[in-house]
Amino acid sequence: MRIFSQRRTIFFTLIIAVYCFYSLAFGASGAEGDGHGGPVLDILIGLIVILLAAKLGGDIFERFGQPAVLGELVIGMLIGNLNLLGITVFESLSHDITLEVLAELGVIILLFEVGLETTVGEMRKVGMASFLVAMVGVIFPFFLGWGVGYWFLPESSIYVHIFIGATLTATSVGITARVLKDIGKIKTKTAKIILGAAVIDDIMGLVILAVVAGIISAVNQGAGDSVGTMTIAWIIIKAILFIVGAVLVGVYLIPTYFNLALRLKGTGVLLSVSLLICFALAYVAGIFGLAPIVGAFAAGLILEEVHFTKFHERGDHSIHELIEPISIFLVPIFFVRMGMMVDITTFTQVEILGFAAVLTLVAIIGKQACSLVIRDVHVNKIAVGLGMIPRGEVGLIFAGIGAKLMLDGEPVISVSTYSAVVIMVMVTTLVTPPALKMVMLTRPAEEGM
Amino acid sequence: MRIFSQRRTIFFTLIIAVYCFYSLAFGASGAEGDGHGGPVLDILIGLIVILLAAKLGGDIFERFGQPAVLGELVIGMLIGNLNLLGITVFESLSHDITLEVLAELGVIILLFEVGLETTVGEMRKVGMASFLVAMVGVIFPFFLGWGVGYWFLPESSIYVHIFIGATLTATSVGITARVLKDIGKIKTKTAKIILGAAVIDDIMGLVILAVVAGIISAVNQGAGDSVGTMTIAWIIIKAILFIVGAVLVGVYLIPTYFNLALRLKGTGVLLSVSLLICFALAYVAGIFGLAPIVGAFAAGLILEEVHFTKFHERGDHSIHELIEPISIFLVPIFFVRMGMMVDITTFTQVEILGFAAVLTLVAIIGKQACSLVIRDVHVNKIAVGLGMIPRGEVGLIFAGIGAKLMLDGEPVISVSTYSAVVIMVMVTTLVTPPALKMVMLTRPAEEGM
Repeated sequence: MRIFSQRRTIFFTLIIAVYCFYSLAFGASGAEGDGHGGPVLDILIGLIVILLAAKLGGDIFERFGQPAVLGELVIGMLIGNLNLLGITVFESLSHDITLEVLAELGVIILLFEVGLETTVGEMRKVGMASFLVAMVGVIFPFFLGWGVGYWFLPESSIYVHIFIGATLTATSVGITARVLKDIGKIKTKTAKIILGAAVIDDIMGLVILAVVAGIISAVNQGAGDSVGTMTIAWIIIKAILFIVGAVLVGVYLIPTYFNLALRLKGTGVLLSVSLLICFALAYVAGIFGLAPIVGAFAAGLILEEVHFTKFHERGDHSIHELIEPISIFLVPIFFVRMGMMVDITTFTQVEILGFAAVLTLVAIIGKQACSLVIRDVHVNKIAVGLGMIPRGEVGLIFAGIGAKLMLDGEPVISVSTYSAVVIMVMVTTLVTPPALKMVMLTRPAEEGM
Repeated sequence: MRIFSQRRTIFFTLIIAVYCFYSLAFGASGAEGDGHGGPVLDILIGLIVILLAAKLGGDIFERFGQPAVLGELVIGMLIGNLNLLGITVFESLSHDITLEVLAELGVIILLFEVGLETTVGEMRKVGMASFLVAMVGVIFPFFLGWGVGYWFLPESSIYVHIFIGATLTATSVGITARVLKDIGKIKTKTAKIILGAAVIDDIMGLVILAVVAGIISAVNQGAGDSVGTMTIAWIIIKAILFIVGAVLVGVYLIPTYFNLALRLKGTGVLLSVSLLICFALAYVAGIFGLAPIVGAFAAGLILEEVHFTKFHERGDHSIHELIEPISIFLVPIFFVRMGMMVDITTFTQVEILGFAAVLTLVAIIGKQACSLVIRDVHVNKIAVGLGMIPRGEVGLIFAGIGAKLMLDGEPVISVSTYSAVVIMVMVTTLVTPPALKMVMLTRPAEEGM
């Protein structure tokens, strides 16, 4: 059947693609008889571009021995900045709300998958280590960032400096989880310590952010600190309630859910119930003020193989096999889109670059302190420090909140500070995959669970 | 581990659910420190409600020997009309653009899956039968609908009557495909004739719609019929181009795509490439003015097992196993949402009910003529007629276009006509699953491929 040469195939494919983009760009679609289409066509072209880019980017980087996720990020950056070359056809992809939601679902599914590969027992084993790593990984970058803020913006308020410190606290566990998964090291003790610490420092970072934002609001409203204290207390209580609640759900409710689910007729019950638990905990984390991915990870953590045995007995696939295709479909959307969010032009502004360089440096150095608290010789200390580096979407969300928060008529995070944070996020995200891969693969002797 | 009784589990789950809905309804979420969340939380709660409703609805209907899809539709109707009881918390789900897109992706995946279970060779075998069934299934309902329009709305323009006829033409293949899949009859000759005919009559229906809409536009602009003729010709040419193009892509390009894909490093290549082909053909169908699901079905049709053998040799799962979890996740969203779109109050308006009843009657009777053209004794004639009954989303889209199209200052499809079309769509959708299931299962002796 292979009548055409590969060159011809690519040629014809390009012709079809050009026609499609022409239709997209000039609205030729549906000029007459637009019986169907509408928003779904925009998403289809977005998914085509993203899935194709993800596979090609991943392939190129894997050929150079780099993790696929880095290729997805870099190719996303290229697509997102094509408008600099006058190619504006992809610009709408960065702002599409549906693609944003699909990307968020992707990272939720990824953390659920990672959580599934971990059990509560294993987490309890690394619990103390993770907690210490998280503490150090929050405190050092926070105060270093505060100092850098004071150094570069001496005339700004102390709250601005604190806010800059806060943007450095939370680890973006998505990148590290993906790298560890790609190189087959997700089940190591090192991986579990990093993942546990990333979840804990996300919570700590959110508490700091909420506290700082609360104080700034109180200052703005001329209210006393009492409002702030109440707010702080409530945020901390909610975070603790969520963690305790998730564990209780896991121990007391999950087995009964699966017993009830076993009685359901129809196909796909195991996957549907698992997705329901994942989405429900992600949602509850969200309304508790935490990141939905924290809930998704918790859901994966509390679901154990023992819950699925009766489903396996009746011939269902394992939950890993069922989740994987959804993950293959949705996860690259998150990473390509994260790359697309980067504005390459910020690289060219010298005054921002200096601030960004120092901020990035303390972001990286600050997390290396994490390796100091590791006592276990079976754990790859350097990998723990490296795995905590990426700041990803959490840092960007923090900076975005700061940009909207006003203090004395000025945004807490100015435009140039925001750019510096973006560069910091970008560099920490880009350096982690190759560094982590190298350290995990060249020093495997220390590993063991 | 099963310490709690099931009653207690349900009790605690309800408490958590009530708290979540309270947060959702009164915006308690993210009041302070809304570090994450945003649109993804709305989607998570939407997915939770829809997946839970789909599983419960499907379970209840399967217990009564009905197809699960009917349960999903009915429970969707209940959720969508809870506002009648003053419960408005779910109202936003019907209008959420992201859920709409997820639902559309769901029906695209469903038709892709159905297409995968069919080969071009098998379709060629039933091609002539499908074409005849489609022709009859378009012509009879079209003229019957035209007549009903003339009878109930004698003072309206002839174009209004033609438009009403057009809303009766296209079969909603999603419902029939899902029923045949649920009862394990998707690989029968009867199924293939129905699916082929549904695809063909969707194209025919779109051509009629495009032609009528084109003529009305031309009349409105005071232009001659020459514009209309050009428009008509171009629509027909585009539809033929798409079909021919899809077949050529299948024969000449697909094998090369998979050979190129085999060289890609990284995981999930087989699924990603298959999804890319599905989304690409769905998109191309869309810009050709056809339904994206027609493209998705065509993509499934042209992908054959032979393309995947080298992937299977290196240990990949089969494409069916890879697509199924995505289908389990997304397809119920489409059917629950279709139910949610129904406005139950239209049932209570007597003047609309008469029109709707006659319209529904001719919609059902018109498609039964399809069984007359079946000569093959191995084909379940009655099932062919029944399988063509549902009008589903295509009829609703047609009516929606008519509602926006103006003629002499009046919409072509008035509010009451729209309600009548909605009832027709609803009834044809609801009667098909039980009827088709009964006929396919009680007369299996005639089956054989």
